[in-house]
Amino acid sequence: MPDLRKDPVTGRWVVVSTERTKRPADFHRSQVVISNQGVCPFCPGNESRTPPEVLAYRSSGGPNQPGWSTRVVPHRFPALRVEGDLNQTADGLYDRMNGIGAHEVIIDCPEHVASLADAPEDNVRDVFFAYRDRALDLKKDPRFEYIQLFKNQGQVAGGALEHTHTELIALPLVPHNLSMELKGAARYFKFRNRCVFCDIVCQELANRSRIVLEGAHVVVLAPFASRCPFELWVLPKRHGSHFEMQPDEVFCDFAACLLAVLASLDRALERPAYNLVLHTAPLRRGEIESFDWHLEIVPRLSRTGGFAMGTGFYLNPTPPEEAARFLRESLE
Amino acid sequence: MPDLRKDPVTGRWVVVSTERTKRPADFHRSQVVISNQGVCPFCPGNESRTPPEVLAYRSSGGPNQPGWSTRVVPHRFPALRVEGDLNQTADGLYDRMNGIGAHEVIIDCPEHVASLADAPEDNVRDVFFAYRDRALDLKKDPRFEYIQLFKNQGQVAGGALEHTHTELIALPLVPHNLSMELKGAARYFKFRNRCVFCDIVCQELANRSRIVLEGAHVVVLAPFASRCPFELWVLPKRHGSHFEMQPDEVFCDFAACLLAVLASLDRALERPAYNLVLHTAPLRRGEIESFDWHLEIVPRLSRTGGFAMGTGFYLNPTPPEEAARFLRESLE
Repeated sequence: MPDLRKDPVTGRWVVVSTERTKRPADFHRSQVVISNQGVCPFCPGNESRTPPEVLAYRSSGGPNQPGWSTRVVPHRFPALRVEGDLNQTADGLYDRMNGIGAHEVIIDCPEHVASLADAPEDNVRDVFFAYRDRALDLKKDPRFEYIQLFKNQGQVAGGALEHTHTELIALPLVPHNLSMELKGAARYFKFRNRCVFCDIVCQELANRSRIVLEGAHVVVLAPFASRCPFELWVLPKRHGSHFEMQPDEVFCDFAACLLAVLASLDRALERPAYNLVLHTAPLRRGEIESFDWHLEIVPRLSRTGGFAMGTGFYLNPTPPEEAARFLRESLE
Repeated sequence: MPDLRKDPVTGRWVVVSTERTKRPADFHRSQVVISNQGVCPFCPGNESRTPPEVLAYRSSGGPNQPGWSTRVVPHRFPALRVEGDLNQTADGLYDRMNGIGAHEVIIDCPEHVASLADAPEDNVRDVFFAYRDRALDLKKDPRFEYIQLFKNQGQVAGGALEHTHTELIALPLVPHNLSMELKGAARYFKFRNRCVFCDIVCQELANRSRIVLEGAHVVVLAPFASRCPFELWVLPKRHGSHFEMQPDEVFCDFAACLLAVLASLDRALERPAYNLVLHTAPLRRGEIESFDWHLEIVPRLSRTGGFAMGTGFYLNPTPPEEAARFLRESLE
């Protein structure tokens, strides 16, 4: 009998197959590989092929020269434009707004590697420090309400360039999915007077069947209502709603755990395409007692079909308990 | 300047690129083609390779024999199981339910073609009559609250078998995405005292820039806040919330218009993978004055990345006005 499971935050149901369980070898994988075709604009020496950097951590060299370890540049073809005023207008029954925003690329490391797991640990940490630094800077611009950090690794996950990089987009509004999540978490808080994410961490640490890795400050787990095979969440052990406000030791432990788990994913699933998606509180809100920041890791192993599209009901052929066990066994 | 557009039903925003507009030739397409590998369980003569049929329209032959034009069979590997009782239980802070439901496959036509647009018009109509007949039958089972009709055409769209087929899944609850849509439509009705879908049809027919085809009973249009290139909606010209309750002439016009538009998509985009997703009112509710049934056509031309995943904010490189123009020009 398949198992219907409800996500306690969003209220979405997922069908978890318990019969024809898919194990790592059962997926058609599109491996993330290095093809080294053409000149890479993200490699050292090619700094002039990107717009001028807005941030770089470097041991030598001047701006837009080699010597950097992590580098942030505006996106060459930004989804939103940074210049202009916010302007919302009606078009009959419709609403439109100017596409104001900032779209930046964090070049994770100088090495031309395709997987973040192949970057040095210092760089994995610095990607998130770079996000923090950029978030604190972009927050000064009163037009922005939210900053979405994400990573598209591999073509199947929407990645365009192979040199490992992460992106951020600053938005003039709080995005729909995050609003829904905040509302769901607030409903839970109203009922139980506790943060739903803190309760998840507490229950999962007691049960352990879905825990992949426990660090000093964060936990990596396969969520109870995983939407897809090998979905993972990184959650803080101590409550905190704004990722960019966390202390340095949380960033360091977060980076170490993330690197270990991404390396495990790369081993267990032979370098799958995946997305990283950060969920954090809106820029203009103070600390939110009902919501924890968290990072979602979404391997792109199966295609979403019309059923999930129509219903929001995902069909997941790999129980998260199995996924967590495989990944625990693949940790080094 | 990119254009941010809000969907008037769900409230979701979409970024429509107006600069680097992608035209049909700009997409990496994965063409839906016939490979004819192995024995097709959906072809006439192979009826024993599927579970026994639950419905067939036939001119000759007995059950599970050749002579049918459209045939409905239970899915061999159903996402949900039809046997058993509904049973919801708690697991700490989580909720689970038995995976009760029905999962059936509508074999669109006897011909081994991969695109619904290659099926005879009578068959395109009969697919939807078969859905209606099955919906009216499944409705008698008090465990079911909703029936999702969908089509995954091509591997990229989640399709597994190439012989054109459509699927339905009867669910023990009203799915999340539909609830959100019903709520959004009810909010609009409360404010304006009109159905938002009727208002959309009215405004689009007056403006015409996003209309692809107008039939006697239905309209095919590229929605104002299209989430992806060449997204299309088929909407009724006369209000109606339950697809299965529409009169025969609506079904006939719907099928004719759908076939014309799918053929146009196949020509303009060289047989792209796509999903068809029916949105209709829940089985147990009477006529809903704030909601119209509609069919969404979602070509799978680009990959969803981490940004859309995190935010619910889609990046669409093809303005719907351009998409509608291309498809109008590709109509025969």
